[in-house]
Amino acid sequence: VKAERLTFQVEGIVTALLTPLDSDGEVKEDALRALIDYQLANGIRGFFPLGTSGEGMKLPLATRKRAAEIVVSQTGGKVPVIVHVGTQDTGMTVDLAVHAADIGADALGAVGPFFYRPDTLGLIQHYRLVGETADTPLFVYNIPDNQGYNISPQRFGAIAAGVPQIAGIKDTSRRIDQLQSLVHTFGGQYTVIGASDALIFANFAAGASAHISMLSNVYPRLAVQIYEAIQRGRLEEARQLQFQAMDLRDVFRAGPSITPYKEALKMKGLDVGTVSSPLRVMTNSEVAALRSGLQALGRLEPIP
Amino acid sequence: VKAERLTFQVEGIVTALLTPLDSDGEVKEDALRALIDYQLANGIRGFFPLGTSGEGMKLPLATRKRAAEIVVSQTGGKVPVIVHVGTQDTGMTVDLAVHAADIGADALGAVGPFFYRPDTLGLIQHYRLVGETADTPLFVYNIPDNQGYNISPQRFGAIAAGVPQIAGIKDTSRRIDQLQSLVHTFGGQYTVIGASDALIFANFAAGASAHISMLSNVYPRLAVQIYEAIQRGRLEEARQLQFQAMDLRDVFRAGPSITPYKEALKMKGLDVGTVSSPLRVMTNSEVAALRSGLQALGRLEPIP
Amino acid sequence: VKAERLTFQVEGIVTALLTPLDSDGEVKEDALRALIDYQLANGIRGFFPLGTSGEGMKLPLATRKRAAEIVVSQTGGKVPVIVHVGTQDTGMTVDLAVHAADIGADALGAVGPFFYRPDTLGLIQHYRLVGETADTPLFVYNIPDNQGYNISPQRFGAIAAGVPQIAGIKDTSRRIDQLQSLVHTFGGQYTVIGASDALIFANFAAGASAHISMLSNVYPRLAVQIYEAIQRGRLEEARQLQFQAMDLRDVFRAGPSITPYKEALKMKGLDVGTVSSPLRVMTNSEVAALRSGLQALGRLEPIP
Amino acid sequence: VKAERLTFQVEGIVTALLTPLDSDGEVKEDALRALIDYQLANGIRGFFPLGTSGEGMKLPLATRKRAAEIVVSQTGGKVPVIVHVGTQDTGMTVDLAVHAADIGADALGAVGPFFYRPDTLGLIQHYRLVGETADTPLFVYNIPDNQGYNISPQRFGAIAAGVPQIAGIKDTSRRIDQLQSLVHTFGGQYTVIGASDALIFANFAAGASAHISMLSNVYPRLAVQIYEAIQRGRLEEARQLQFQAMDLRDVFRAGPSITPYKEALKMKGLDVGTVSSPLRVMTNSEVAALRSGLQALGRLEPIP
Repeated sequence: VKAERLTFQVEGIVTALLTPLDSDGEVKEDALRALIDYQLANGIRGFFPLGTSGEGMKLPLATRKRAAEIVVSQTGGKVPVIVHVGTQDTGMTVDLAVHAADIGADALGAVGPFFYRPDTLGLIQHYRLVGETADTPLFVYNIPDNQGYNISPQRFGAIAAGVPQIAGIKDTSRRIDQLQSLVHTFGGQYTVIGASDALIFANFAAGASAHISMLSNVYPRLAVQIYEAIQRGRLEEARQLQFQAMDLRDVFRAGPSITPYKEALKMKGLDVGTVSSPLRVMTNSEVAALRSGLQALGRLEPIP
Repeated sequence: VKAERLTFQVEGIVTALLTPLDSDGEVKEDALRALIDYQLANGIRGFFPLGTSGEGMKLPLATRKRAAEIVVSQTGGKVPVIVHVGTQDTGMTVDLAVHAADIGADALGAVGPFFYRPDTLGLIQHYRLVGETADTPLFVYNIPDNQGYNISPQRFGAIAAGVPQIAGIKDTSRRIDQLQSLVHTFGGQYTVIGASDALIFANFAAGASAHISMLSNVYPRLAVQIYEAIQRGRLEEARQLQFQAMDLRDVFRAGPSITPYKEALKMKGLDVGTVSSPLRVMTNSEVAALRSGLQALGRLEPIP
Repeated sequence: VKAERLTFQVEGIVTALLTPLDSDGEVKEDALRALIDYQLANGIRGFFPLGTSGEGMKLPLATRKRAAEIVVSQTGGKVPVIVHVGTQDTGMTVDLAVHAADIGADALGAVGPFFYRPDTLGLIQHYRLVGETADTPLFVYNIPDNQGYNISPQRFGAIAAGVPQIAGIKDTSRRIDQLQSLVHTFGGQYTVIGASDALIFANFAAGASAHISMLSNVYPRLAVQIYEAIQRGRLEEARQLQFQAMDLRDVFRAGPSITPYKEALKMKGLDVGTVSSPLRVMTNSEVAALRSGLQALGRLEPIP
Repeated sequence: VKAERLTFQVEGIVTALLTPLDSDGEVKEDALRALIDYQLANGIRGFFPLGTSGEGMKLPLATRKRAAEIVVSQTGGKVPVIVHVGTQDTGMTVDLAVHAADIGADALGAVGPFFYRPDTLGLIQHYRLVGETADTPLFVYNIPDNQGYNISPQRFGAIAAGVPQIAGIKDTSRRIDQLQSLVHTFGGQYTVIGASDALIFANFAAGASAHISMLSNVYPRLAVQIYEAIQRGRLEEARQLQFQAMDLRDVFRAGPSITPYKEALKMKGLDVGTVSSPLRVMTNSEVAALRSGLQALGRLEPIP
């Protein structure tokens, strides 16, 4: 018998959770729980742990599983958790997917396999094996800059048609025309989620039902306010809030990749530890630039 | 004495006018006048002739001047005319710019010099020579895919700071984050115009004051309706209209580049002639696909 | 005390060994041993197992270790073995590197960490941790199309200056000007190895001391003949042999990625099994195209 | 009747002649004649005036014609002259092509039309109109970075099959694998010319019959020596000479684009004037860096 289609709804700001790590690369459990509480207290509507922001694509599988368990447990069903289980390999992804389903993840996400760049038939094979084994709603995660190829609306359509567990797509192409095509072609049937914090406003305007944010780890209220302003039809207000988000993003460019977000949380009183190599800690002068940039924007308010 | 800064406002849908050509490559004057009347009767708020859609970058200078004269004369001041005068060369651009100013163009546009890809100092030199000779409000026209490099917000800032005639920028980067940065950094002081018909809705949402449209040559009302819906805060309506524009764009991919737009006007009763080589006419099967695509969308209504 | 610099020489054709796999994703030991014997009997001067061709970047660490052990044991010191230990993560790479050093690998290779794209400081940190832990000559492996960024000669210089175990670079940029720069700047001090089978001839002409070949898995003699022709100064002969290699490469495009190479070995009598997902087996019509292409070139001779 | 195929042979180093210009943008005739004499006295085997190095793509047509006349007259049949007549437009290209044929150019070159990026049918149409009007051997000039698309071997084959005047291709793709494919597929029937001065050695090694050089404007002997070393089978000598060419190229990066080449000729005693905007003259500090770089390499020897 043919499997039934799985669907999954999520709306508003979803945080691409950072993974607090100690210097041995182990999960800092208390910090992760505190980060989740901080998010829940500020209007976040879901979590996407272990994705790009969560360093998922390079953490050992055991570490990923441990972090996922903490997230599901601490969230306690208050908002949905979409555990990212993607890797470069189908076998490893299946392993993580089965684990996530077992511990009660509400849905799964899986990046297009990176390094090797499978063709469309390879992608269908990959998502089918993951989907049918875990039997949990599954999001395709498209991030062309890092995975090395684009999952176009047409390709997504081919994958979705072949894999009944596909619930939607998280598109980090940074191309609003592509997101719009996804909403136009698949909206209603599939859940289209936007990303890239320069585009929170644009994604919702284009019709995304949710936005997965990295910035919201540090500034959840700001991201939520953008969403709420659009929901109320206050375009000009949403645009001005988005400009604030862009100014913060510019300041976060003081350091490499994910590190400034962890550093900023620490400056605000929530010590989420460090990143693991090949990501690197910030130099002293980078830290100073980050601090003065955030200070200039008046955004070093302590986390209660 | 230092030159005073020039400014120029434009709002709503501006048509990137096609240039009707006969088989000798001469302007079809009657068709051009009819096309302008069709636009004016349907809510278009300005013209941008002789740009990419107008085949400006490859028409002989004499042909470009002739077409510009017809556009300015037929428009008769009813809406602003921004004549595109950009070329790969400063001298040719100055020649066209002086002509356009002389015949009464309201403003000028100039693409980043293509083929040779000048650095920022070269760009400032180019726009300064054009600006100070023509002494008319001048728009930088950024189209990375065709000119071979991006004029980033930072680069635009350097050009604008050095050239008092710069009135704003038309950004065809297709990147909403970049348009948003331009609006955030330069809005108020400079006029930011969007482009690319997949992004009419997104450009206005992001804060562009005008959108230069190719599609509006054929379907001016649809483009205007998107603008009006946003002005009235009707986001969902605007989005649905944008989806219609995307469906049309998909159909226009039946043939190469600009040709399908000319062909569609002909199908609707306005014969704007052909394109000049190296652009090419459509094959019979391409024409058939275009016709059946437009028919399927119910968009072959005759132009009165 | 400062660590002493390690160096490592290798010359001629080195095979980027395929990893024979059964349908459970386990190494087919007998096939791997037979493949190595086939190579050794045909003039191959070294092995680079577990790289891109060897599916290393997606095989589980345990499988990679098992395969490395078989390669080192079966090679028996007859030619050098450079075990590829690169991953997206420093910790995993260190784990593999220590193992490879322990089992007697002559040298190591490590791809630039993929997915996350570390900056130069991150790269130095990564290679330093790998190098100082394994204390074995280490090659930087640069493959921009797959890792998502280029390790330029300048970046390689920065890495090499900071990591005394760096013995050289394998450059798969497909840019002869870059390979030439590497030879010009670092030749003598570091070993520069070329790759990409369209460029066997060009790499040696440009001064690479070795070429890591995928084609040589199936056609070792042809690759070796190109090298030997250049060594003897027979440029025209080398060029004609390279043309043969290009014709074969064109035929191998009948299927996706690595699979056609495994399939061709099977057609020639050496069953190296299948690829693991997300790579995929060939369709029937792809297999037929491969077979008829190789037949047309007269290259289905059985492996003895 | 079908037109007969035209062929054209050229071998060795061909100089992509700079166009000496005065501050009004007019050709400095004496300097151009002196530059040609300098080239002829140093072993150059042909000229390619008015190409990218010759600022052809942005000079007014009248200036291009004037320069072409001087080149043909001063060369006096001693070596072949391939006049570049390409533009973004078919009509302008035909105009220049007819003129060049009339004044006795031995062959023509035409870049793939830039800015508008015609498809393969458009390219065939373009080259056919140019070829059949001028009826002179015609080279396709492929320079993807500037024209915005690649003319692949397959596309060149389609053009050549449709245009009997096509004599060959100048490939500035900087991809040796592509040049090699052109030699393999079309060598013998068509003349394959390489370019990019980092690849003089590699182009000849790959089987190009000629190389069009920019560096040879300033250092003709060095370029010729690379060619001669390869002709004599002295690979190591050729490689070392290529390294010298690369060191010079690095020094020429002290300023923008073409300008440093003109400046270096002036430093060596041959005043070829300036570049025209949007190219720009060098700043004082750029000139100083160029001078000290050339001095350090001992390459400021005066031109006799």
